[in-house]
Amino acid sequence: MTHSQVGASLGFDVTEPAELVLRIAAARPLAETLTVTGGAGTVDVVELPGRLHLVRAPRGRLTVTYTAEVAASGTEPAGVTEVERIVALRPSRYCPSDRLGGFAAAMFGRAGDDTAIVRAITTWVFEHLSYESGSSGPTTDAAETLLDGRGVCRDYAHLVATLCRALNVPARVAAVYAPGLSPMDFHLVAEAALDGRWTVWDATRLAPRQSLIRIATGRDAADTALETTLSGLLTMPELLITAVAGGDLPADDHVSLAELA
Amino acid sequence: MTHSQVGASLGFDVTEPAELVLRIAAARPLAETLTVTGGAGTVDVVELPGRLHLVRAPRGRLTVTYTAEVAASGTEPAGVTEVERIVALRPSRYCPSDRLGGFAAAMFGRAGDDTAIVRAITTWVFEHLSYESGSSGPTTDAAETLLDGRGVCRDYAHLVATLCRALNVPARVAAVYAPGLSPMDFHLVAEAALDGRWTVWDATRLAPRQSLIRIATGRDAADTALETTLSGLLTMPELLITAVAGGDLPADDHVSLAELA
Amino acid sequence: MTHSQVGASLGFDVTEPAELVLRIAAARPLAETLTVTGGAGTVDVVELPGRLHLVRAPRGRLTVTYTAEVAASGTEPAGVTEVERIVALRPSRYCPSDRLGGFAAAMFGRAGDDTAIVRAITTWVFEHLSYESGSSGPTTDAAETLLDGRGVCRDYAHLVATLCRALNVPARVAAVYAPGLSPMDFHLVAEAALDGRWTVWDATRLAPRQSLIRIATGRDAADTALETTLSGLLTMPELLITAVAGGDLPADDHVSLAELA
Amino acid sequence: MTHSQVGASLGFDVTEPAELVLRIAAARPLAETLTVTGGAGTVDVVELPGRLHLVRAPRGRLTVTYTAEVAASGTEPAGVTEVERIVALRPSRYCPSDRLGGFAAAMFGRAGDDTAIVRAITTWVFEHLSYESGSSGPTTDAAETLLDGRGVCRDYAHLVATLCRALNVPARVAAVYAPGLSPMDFHLVAEAALDGRWTVWDATRLAPRQSLIRIATGRDAADTALETTLSGLLTMPELLITAVAGGDLPADDHVSLAELA
Repeated sequence: MTHSQVGASLGFDVTEPAELVLRIAAARPLAETLTVTGGAGTVDVVELPGRLHLVRAPRGRLTVTYTAEVAASGTEPAGVTEVERIVALRPSRYCPSDRLGGFAAAMFGRAGDDTAIVRAITTWVFEHLSYESGSSGPTTDAAETLLDGRGVCRDYAHLVATLCRALNVPARVAAVYAPGLSPMDFHLVAEAALDGRWTVWDATRLAPRQSLIRIATGRDAADTALETTLSGLLTMPELLITAVAGGDLPADDHVSLAELA
Repeated sequence: MTHSQVGASLGFDVTEPAELVLRIAAARPLAETLTVTGGAGTVDVVELPGRLHLVRAPRGRLTVTYTAEVAASGTEPAGVTEVERIVALRPSRYCPSDRLGGFAAAMFGRAGDDTAIVRAITTWVFEHLSYESGSSGPTTDAAETLLDGRGVCRDYAHLVATLCRALNVPARVAAVYAPGLSPMDFHLVAEAALDGRWTVWDATRLAPRQSLIRIATGRDAADTALETTLSGLLTMPELLITAVAGGDLPADDHVSLAELA
Repeated sequence: MTHSQVGASLGFDVTEPAELVLRIAAARPLAETLTVTGGAGTVDVVELPGRLHLVRAPRGRLTVTYTAEVAASGTEPAGVTEVERIVALRPSRYCPSDRLGGFAAAMFGRAGDDTAIVRAITTWVFEHLSYESGSSGPTTDAAETLLDGRGVCRDYAHLVATLCRALNVPARVAAVYAPGLSPMDFHLVAEAALDGRWTVWDATRLAPRQSLIRIATGRDAADTALETTLSGLLTMPELLITAVAGGDLPADDHVSLAELA
Repeated sequence: MTHSQVGASLGFDVTEPAELVLRIAAARPLAETLTVTGGAGTVDVVELPGRLHLVRAPRGRLTVTYTAEVAASGTEPAGVTEVERIVALRPSRYCPSDRLGGFAAAMFGRAGDDTAIVRAITTWVFEHLSYESGSSGPTTDAAETLLDGRGVCRDYAHLVATLCRALNVPARVAAVYAPGLSPMDFHLVAEAALDGRWTVWDATRLAPRQSLIRIATGRDAADTALETTLSGLLTMPELLITAVAGGDLPADDHVSLAELA
């Protein structure tokens, strides 16, 4: 079987010398390249734990090119650790699970065991939200998404994770490369802990879960932003993502259990 | 048929000379008495449009006693005016209908005509909220109630009115005397405009709608508070409500159409 | 002295037969014209109390043209009635004064008498908000504006009114024609009750208050929207406002007392 | 110099076999004891990274007793790592720094360098919030605290951390034993990264920072709760905290720089 190929090209205009954090590297690549070229001065790149890249860039054009080859299968997903489980039950900025416990209990509390609950939540979110580009913003949280009934992948993932946590099912989000997604973009999905495994759920149903390639994992989008500016000033006028599955794209019913490597 | 008898006794401790507004008078009584007795100085009582009583009270104990006799039936309810309809579509403080349009549409938008929509909303609120004294506060709005899944009569009425407005059905609230309510208290219900009539809906199902006696009508609880302090300082250590229906209490299925006089 | 001249031209595309409410007529004109022309069928226009115009329009292009001549001075403003005062102390959808009482008290509670408090609030809002087109939306309330530090005239008026009410000063908003405003648009300002008069405050300081011409008055923007669609479907691709003061525009220090007619 | 002595006694009524996480152990004790005794069955205690104790308890009474001796001085605080700095700039559940950037910039943005900014924020929070037991709840976030103007130590710490992050100063919270606090309780304070050091700030000014003893560190109170129930059912009718400084309590001006070990 051939491997999956993913990549990202980012172009920045740096108007004040800047420190930025990139979260674009695949979590477990077979092979990868990262090229960062900057303006007049030196560009400094440091990899930090969690596959973050801290970049210090001078004024001028900053270009980032990343490519990776990822095994299409055969990598064993890691189980749920005790600390992960504990953290994944906490409310977070965009997943305020402590605010919608009553709604979650009334709607999904009697769905059955944890697996049935997560499946009921994900199906409900798929059926009751409408996907609209531009309908939400960077400060939108899952409570607002529930009320507004609209969102993008970020909002779908947040709402699924929030409802799971509200019913005491540990849940988190994963930023992924998503072969088959159209238009191509970075994608965000939810992961719920079931029987010691991190099962992946995508209420947008826009790409098969079996081909997703993990980049970053976190409590919510605050932890998985593609780019964060720590200091300085910049814009990102160019962004191009590529993600091609090794082999044919699988069909996904989006209700069976699946895991990310 | 005998008439309904309602009444309220309020005891205030006025620690700074105060102006307060009372909203305790029945909207259309056959007969009524209002007795206000104050501390050392003179108590001034003025009735304002909308059956508000503006009271200016000196320091000391302030006692208010109200009794009314109200026709148990035979009073023709008023129809919906154009201005009422327009105002009843606006979002308000505790009914932020502009924030949950998407949820309302996805859940109830295909229920049928306006009557079917209101009935579906009211039944859903009855089934999905749990009634818990003390679970909400004076700043709780309907969006919070939806998320929290709990509330008291005020929250039930707000949520019903908000969901109706979000689906373009004019809705408002009515503060009422509620024979049969236990424990006895002031009660708040929703009214929705259907075919030019103000139909009344009570998702708590705690008292038959046919015996309710209107006090005040408004956009939400901001308009119908039993007491509002305009200036000065006071507490209300005593409150006793009575409401006895003329004749037996009717059985109410809470899904058929009903109107308040 | 010459009179002020104001006007509005609105063009709608009605795709489903619609009922809409217009709030464009000056509150107290010397003379005015309103022309409404519609598509294939008949257009029906009814004036409702409060200078609302209810329009029933068939499919097609709907054009509304309004012009008015308004006395530049000499009209006696009305005083504050008891009911207005009571209503203007209530929290409302975009002015949730019950949520920011502590902030208001800590910041402005010791400014002095009510006039000093309103002046301190208005000056603070002028100095601490930045005016940015597009920085807020139709659901933005004054609490969000306070946190976000940005807004347009609507948000400035809401924040001033909210802080006033939180300190027990009755406050409301007025939609106005604003000679001198650039770019020309409908404008929203705050009114606070001081010594029985409705004083007007504009924390944007973008147009002299002495030339403002009242259209509508309400609790907040929910009551003063230029256009509200009650039923049907339409868009408003064209909007042109004109407002010319009779005589030279006055200079306004924006801290002295002023009233709208 | 003598060492500080801290301790906690917790009594739980476990009504369904429960898993709970305790966060009561000092971060860097010289010596400590932890005794957990349960009901009919076996109690299982596991220490997890971050000094968490995961307890599995059967039905019945569960008693937890912790004591520790901590060096009063001489322990070198750790510097700020790159990853800590990046995480401490993210918005979190109770510190929604992405929602109040405009307010923070208008109020504190021109205070000077980062140290001056943090000092200005902490002084302002001390002066503008009032400490009221029971005025906030477990879902209260820093935006609500800013509006409401009231809170307890948790709310003070959240507001300081949120305003710092909003101005791009990395900030987090620390749960601490606080000798001198009255009434004695667990305490929460803010830490801001200044010149590579985690400086500690307590806008309540209720206990000297120099004697505080770190328990847990996190983004906000979601990470530092004394007790979290993962599964099962329990109540905690008994809680007793002790914290005695080694030597006299220092005087703290609450504006100079200080660090926790």
